[in-house]
Amino acid sequence: MQPEQYYCALVEYDGTDFLGYQVQVKGRTVQGEIEKALRKVTQTTLRINGAGRTDTGVHATGQIVSFKVGWRHQLSDLHRALNATLPSDIIFKKLKIVSDHRFHPRFSALKRSYCYTIVNEEWPSVLARRYAHHVPKSLDIRMMQQASKLFIGSQDFAAFGKPTQGESTTREIMIAEWDEIDNRLVFHITANAFLYRMVRKIVGTLIDVGLGRLTLEDLQEILLSRELTRSSPPAPACGLCLVRVDYSRDLWGNA
Amino acid sequence: MQPEQYYCALVEYDGTDFLGYQVQVKGRTVQGEIEKALRKVTQTTLRINGAGRTDTGVHATGQIVSFKVGWRHQLSDLHRALNATLPSDIIFKKLKIVSDHRFHPRFSALKRSYCYTIVNEEWPSVLARRYAHHVPKSLDIRMMQQASKLFIGSQDFAAFGKPTQGESTTREIMIAEWDEIDNRLVFHITANAFLYRMVRKIVGTLIDVGLGRLTLEDLQEILLSRELTRSSPPAPACGLCLVRVDYSRDLWGNA
Repeated sequence: MQPEQYYCALVEYDGTDFLGYQVQVKGRTVQGEIEKALRKVTQTTLRINGAGRTDTGVHATGQIVSFKVGWRHQLSDLHRALNATLPSDIIFKKLKIVSDHRFHPRFSALKRSYCYTIVNEEWPSVLARRYAHHVPKSLDIRMMQQASKLFIGSQDFAAFGKPTQGESTTREIMIAEWDEIDNRLVFHITANAFLYRMVRKIVGTLIDVGLGRLTLEDLQEILLSRELTRSSPPAPACGLCLVRVDYSRDLWGNA
Repeated sequence: MQPEQYYCALVEYDGTDFLGYQVQVKGRTVQGEIEKALRKVTQTTLRINGAGRTDTGVHATGQIVSFKVGWRHQLSDLHRALNATLPSDIIFKKLKIVSDHRFHPRFSALKRSYCYTIVNEEWPSVLARRYAHHVPKSLDIRMMQQASKLFIGSQDFAAFGKPTQGESTTREIMIAEWDEIDNRLVFHITANAFLYRMVRKIVGTLIDVGLGRLTLEDLQEILLSRELTRSSPPAPACGLCLVRVDYSRDLWGNA
């Protein structure tokens, strides 16, 4: 019997055909598919830990997962075998052995970064339809950019999401800004952590700002209200992608 | 009975689930799906003309099609009805009435532009898997850039494709260059016209240059040989996209 080692992986997935990250009683999930591949490759039934429990339809290029398993061959063999076994909509971009067994993808994380993509044209783009939300009416990107600044800092975001555990609804947002490339708007947001559906609620509200349905004053009021019903409905899942999770040291560095 | 008018459309499609553009005896094609939608919306059985007969799996953001049909309502109603009827992997981005009945999407075209996308990383990107070719070995993009210049100009490209009609294999390439964004390489190529599979044969050969399998001298020799078997196999269809067709005047201009 091979002694167990602790592994950590950088995972990319296309969320379109998953019922989210976390294992459910029924339905295809990212966690479920990864655990199935690990079982096939290592003949071991195990649970993995993930950094972010992304919703149904949400994508990731920077999900972090960890697991303990015994493996008698090279690390690169495990990596290749897993990628050959995983379905075509999940891939392990990186895999390494972690020496610090206290490391936890979720609890050790200091920052999470998401991006949200909008196609702002009269008709949707069929090439972008799995990865972007389509808004046909013209959005005022300058107003959305200004409004985004109101989210920066350590604030009570109770109006934008429910905590998944614990009571506090205070989070610190470090980055909240829009990039405009042709008719594609990409929102970049980084925080120490997010409340449930917080990014999509923020984007939904910023879209209403961009459509002229909400002013900056309205948005400030919504933030201060701490009432979840005051913010706009969440923007659709397809536009959202978990792009990066940061820890106290670079997971993939040489150190 | 409504008098017929002549329409022209800018069409985007995701080629993944099509047996190419052109109608086949069996199988789902772009032309077939557009003609089906036109039949449903206008109650008329008709044939459309297209600018480029893209292969199985090839995408388009700039395909041009034309057709004659009678329609008693507004142009915008026809546009909306067609987009509501078309499958989710085809969309009419623009639709207009053409006054010049001599216009033909293919025969009137002066230039065609394609782009070809490569993900050059150890592991494929699942988010890009429908729209990019994955090359795991490191490509020398500077050599590929230099090699691309050899294709520029009016030359006999018999080594890179067969003519679909007529005998001449001379074509004029105006643009052939690579963009590098992170680990994504995008090849832009514009010519008066292309031989069958010519872009994919050029990209396949340039990949062999990037891998160090062919030198610039080899490439020059292949071009001069005019032998189809001397060039590399075509790069996979998924990376290719028809992005633009140019005519003597801007189809979508106000004039």
